[in-house]
Amino acid sequence: MGLLEFIKDYFLGFWDYETPKVMVVKNKKLGVIYRGVQFLVITYFIWYVFISQKAYQDSETRPESSVYTKMKGTALQGDHVLDMVEYVRPLEGGDVISTILRREVTHNQRQGTCAEHFTVPSANCSKDADCISGEVNVDGNGQRTGRCVPYYNQTFKTCEIQTWCPIEDYAAIWEPALAEAINFTVYIKNAIHFPKFKVLRGNIKPNKRNGQKYLNKCHYNEKKQPYCPIFRLGYIAEQAREKFSELCRTGGVIGVFINWKCDLDLDPSECTPTYSFRRLDLRKNLPSSGYNFRFAKYYSKDGEEFRTLIKAFGIRLDVIVHGHAGRFSIIPTIINTVTAMTSVGICSIICDWIMLTFIDKNDIYSDRKFDDDSKVPSPSQPLTVPIEFTISYGSNHSDLSEGVAL
Amino acid sequence: MGLLEFIKDYFLGFWDYETPKVMVVKNKKLGVIYRGVQFLVITYFIWYVFISQKAYQDSETRPESSVYTKMKGTALQGDHVLDMVEYVRPLEGGDVISTILRREVTHNQRQGTCAEHFTVPSANCSKDADCISGEVNVDGNGQRTGRCVPYYNQTFKTCEIQTWCPIEDYAAIWEPALAEAINFTVYIKNAIHFPKFKVLRGNIKPNKRNGQKYLNKCHYNEKKQPYCPIFRLGYIAEQAREKFSELCRTGGVIGVFINWKCDLDLDPSECTPTYSFRRLDLRKNLPSSGYNFRFAKYYSKDGEEFRTLIKAFGIRLDVIVHGHAGRFSIIPTIINTVTAMTSVGICSIICDWIMLTFIDKNDIYSDRKFDDDSKVPSPSQPLTVPIEFTISYGSNHSDLSEGVAL
Amino acid sequence: MGLLEFIKDYFLGFWDYETPKVMVVKNKKLGVIYRGVQFLVITYFIWYVFISQKAYQDSETRPESSVYTKMKGTALQGDHVLDMVEYVRPLEGGDVISTILRREVTHNQRQGTCAEHFTVPSANCSKDADCISGEVNVDGNGQRTGRCVPYYNQTFKTCEIQTWCPIEDYAAIWEPALAEAINFTVYIKNAIHFPKFKVLRGNIKPNKRNGQKYLNKCHYNEKKQPYCPIFRLGYIAEQAREKFSELCRTGGVIGVFINWKCDLDLDPSECTPTYSFRRLDLRKNLPSSGYNFRFAKYYSKDGEEFRTLIKAFGIRLDVIVHGHAGRFSIIPTIINTVTAMTSVGICSIICDWIMLTFIDKNDIYSDRKFDDDSKVPSPSQPLTVPIEFTISYGSNHSDLSEGVAL
Repeated sequence: MGLLEFIKDYFLGFWDYETPKVMVVKNKKLGVIYRGVQFLVITYFIWYVFISQKAYQDSETRPESSVYTKMKGTALQGDHVLDMVEYVRPLEGGDVISTILRREVTHNQRQGTCAEHFTVPSANCSKDADCISGEVNVDGNGQRTGRCVPYYNQTFKTCEIQTWCPIEDYAAIWEPALAEAINFTVYIKNAIHFPKFKVLRGNIKPNKRNGQKYLNKCHYNEKKQPYCPIFRLGYIAEQAREKFSELCRTGGVIGVFINWKCDLDLDPSECTPTYSFRRLDLRKNLPSSGYNFRFAKYYSKDGEEFRTLIKAFGIRLDVIVHGHAGRFSIIPTIINTVTAMTSVGICSIICDWIMLTFIDKNDIYSDRKFDDDSKVPSPSQPLTVPIEFTISYGSNHSDLSEGVAL
Repeated sequence: MGLLEFIKDYFLGFWDYETPKVMVVKNKKLGVIYRGVQFLVITYFIWYVFISQKAYQDSETRPESSVYTKMKGTALQGDHVLDMVEYVRPLEGGDVISTILRREVTHNQRQGTCAEHFTVPSANCSKDADCISGEVNVDGNGQRTGRCVPYYNQTFKTCEIQTWCPIEDYAAIWEPALAEAINFTVYIKNAIHFPKFKVLRGNIKPNKRNGQKYLNKCHYNEKKQPYCPIFRLGYIAEQAREKFSELCRTGGVIGVFINWKCDLDLDPSECTPTYSFRRLDLRKNLPSSGYNFRFAKYYSKDGEEFRTLIKAFGIRLDVIVHGHAGRFSIIPTIINTVTAMTSVGICSIICDWIMLTFIDKNDIYSDRKFDDDSKVPSPSQPLTVPIEFTISYGSNHSDLSEGVAL
Repeated sequence: MGLLEFIKDYFLGFWDYETPKVMVVKNKKLGVIYRGVQFLVITYFIWYVFISQKAYQDSETRPESSVYTKMKGTALQGDHVLDMVEYVRPLEGGDVISTILRREVTHNQRQGTCAEHFTVPSANCSKDADCISGEVNVDGNGQRTGRCVPYYNQTFKTCEIQTWCPIEDYAAIWEPALAEAINFTVYIKNAIHFPKFKVLRGNIKPNKRNGQKYLNKCHYNEKKQPYCPIFRLGYIAEQAREKFSELCRTGGVIGVFINWKCDLDLDPSECTPTYSFRRLDLRKNLPSSGYNFRFAKYYSKDGEEFRTLIKAFGIRLDVIVHGHAGRFSIIPTIINTVTAMTSVGICSIICDWIMLTFIDKNDIYSDRKFDDDSKVPSPSQPLTVPIEFTISYGSNHSDLSEGVAL
């Protein structure tokens, strides 16, 4: 046999079709188990993977998102009218927006020296020697001058400090909460973009006839007004299962979740967002829970700077956008179908194991399944595993000459 | 046969090698289909999975990113010079930065009472009884005092409200747009870090010789200056396919996308970002499209506070960083090779199905493929499926005694 | 054979169990290779996939996160006391917070005309004709008026510009760094929520007895105080391997990484965060490295506005939260077990290839493995591959009549 013949043989052999030999076992118990497992696997794939998880779709999460927020409403604080510019921080309208609900205001603070608050450790004194000049207490309000002075209009004395005077702990005026804030509204405009699918969606329905008019009047309500992007603070607090009065007292951070689930195989108008609200900061049993921040307004008079210090308790809204889009695609469909078919093959492994372990006649089956090369019989041995042609001997056998030599 | 012998048998059997028996079918049609499907699957894996998707690489997306932005430029608004401190919000230089392009300024607002704007519902009145004291209209500017007053210097009357006076709707001065803003520049510094690969990259090329000088002069241009991190606002608007004059009128949110695609198997200098620009907020047919925000400057005179209210229309730039890095790794290479090999096995399933369904002689093939246990013949039955030794009987058979007993 | 019979046959055949026929090769070399590869694959799955990667768990990354930050401390700048309201930007306490460490202050800037800085290109002049009226230089500070004026109290002249006067480059006062800032503390409150598992965790241990007291005193330290959410700026800089004095000079962006790794199969108290710190902006060899920003305080006197411009160098802390939670789930366990079992099957492919290629007696094996349909012998041919019943002929064979006809 020359090299040429070998190459020819190899080339012809290349076009042969190879398929594993299979043993058929006529056993009802095994058959039922076998088909049962197959059924479970196929059901899992069809129901869970294909229908529920939509594995036939190419998907994209985390769309590019743009959030624009604007708060509206006025409240009366004594004689002072507060409008949005005063109670909203920051004013640029990004995805995090805070509203002030209650303020502790310290008016007319100036750089100077005044008495430290009496609750600060080692602040109480009777003579100057009790106060170390230059010392800065971490919990205190400033640097000590080394003098012991009367505590404002009281009879006891505390160490004098250099700081913004008077100190907040002493001079802050606790304003009542802005009860009207429950009716403040926040307008949330959200546009998303799925770059893979080139799909752009917004949470405001384009409405040519009465768009602006509608937006001026509507308030979001899950059931009645699901397409209105204007949310009452009271509604948000209610949905987040928080008491508004409690929020006014301590402040809090509330997440506004915008969820986009878009099946792009359906009509684009089906791709609308749902909203949910949840308090984000922990509160139970926690010291310093809630949300507050300080800021100041600076003024100048006769060259001297003074400020109004404001400790603000409020609601911080964090707008968080989740998105998922899917559209039919051939590659994931093929891959998941192939995976499903492969997994069905796993049934054989499980059934084999059952067959070879639990069914009584396993020895015989295993012998027939496993062709042991140490037991190749001498030609004279008659015990063989032949394969009979069982079905339709009378069928057309004329083409058998092509490949099979009987 | 004792237990000991059984264990010994089992132990020896453990080291046996098992391989499925395969039937070879010499059928050109089937062979071509079989090899064709195999070829498709292998091509898919080599070309798409390995070359295009780089499945041999371990990959990481979403790098840690740090963005620092700074805007530059001066514009003249009447006699007033606006510099960066006045038209940029917020000033801290994070990944969201707004430039004011046009302002509606209301000077000298003070707390007090004045007439409500005539467009507010139920604001028009002829006598005090038309105005309910204490009422706050959602679309209005403050709380009604219950009086009916002349509308500024007009002859008609509206309800008086307590608010910052005069009201913005009446007193705001519309300033012309900052035409010079088209030449404002924004410097975007971006550093990313892939924690898995410990790779740190920045969008500014370290250039020892003339770095600072280059950064002072250059403007980004996709073709001419791809490594310059300074962007003209006009260029950004142009790339986002927006008219700058239109942006000046309504404002808008533009995304600046920085895309890092790093093949870490190549030279690190290949790992450079590309930039793209796209308008993020929807605009077509939408009421209240665009981007604007209000803020105020507070002053004090003789103990009385007053403010300048500014409604600012502008561009908000959202810098969004995408990143992907890949580097050769042995585990994904093995896993994907194994998946490829398994998938090639799927060909058999498809070809089996074709063979057993469409090819004429399927009965014979299926009989030969399926060894039906109900048809185990009596020892005397002569019809068997023997396997012949066909190739090179003359080869060295001396070692056959090791495992095969002929 | 009628249609009815065919359907009956098909229906009965449906409940047959099919299993591939397997050839057993008694060859130690092959057996050892075969079992060795199997062992490697099984070890990989058990050790790496199941134990190290916890493939039996359903997992969730990217929890919803809420960050609240607050800075504390006072510093003395000459006679001026700086408190948190003055050195922190923005004040709302989000996930990005900047501290000012050093300031360059330009007092009393007013709108007007003054001399351009001499380093600006083409600013030096000797006569009015050198200065083009209306020209705005990109690197300059304002619009030229067309006049050539003396440079403040110097003898040389530069072009006059309309801008905020005096210009910062000339009039800024460089303040020394806030050395006390090394002891400033930042309180970072972080709450996360895994929506899939409905698990809510915070980085502050609820401690009923002395919670607030503990939080007032403690400072985070990886070893001594791992549960304290209050971080000294000096500690952060040290952990990020930065010199604090260097940060004071140029500023910098430092990432505070909060890593949550929660194995929800364990006790919830095991689910605590770890902190790490890393400088985010690149610094080596880079022009304009570091972090600074400008802002201004606006005042009014006799109707004229003036401002204090502050160029602030500082640390920007970006709080970045990573999270991963896992909990036992049946679906990933099944899927990964199936994948493992399938992968073990790959051993056969490798061993087959070895067997058919390198082992001497491959021809014989390959012939026995491959049942070539072109070589189906005539019934009289005696060379067959029979399968012997080898084990326990004395076992109970009475049930064989059910499926196997001997």
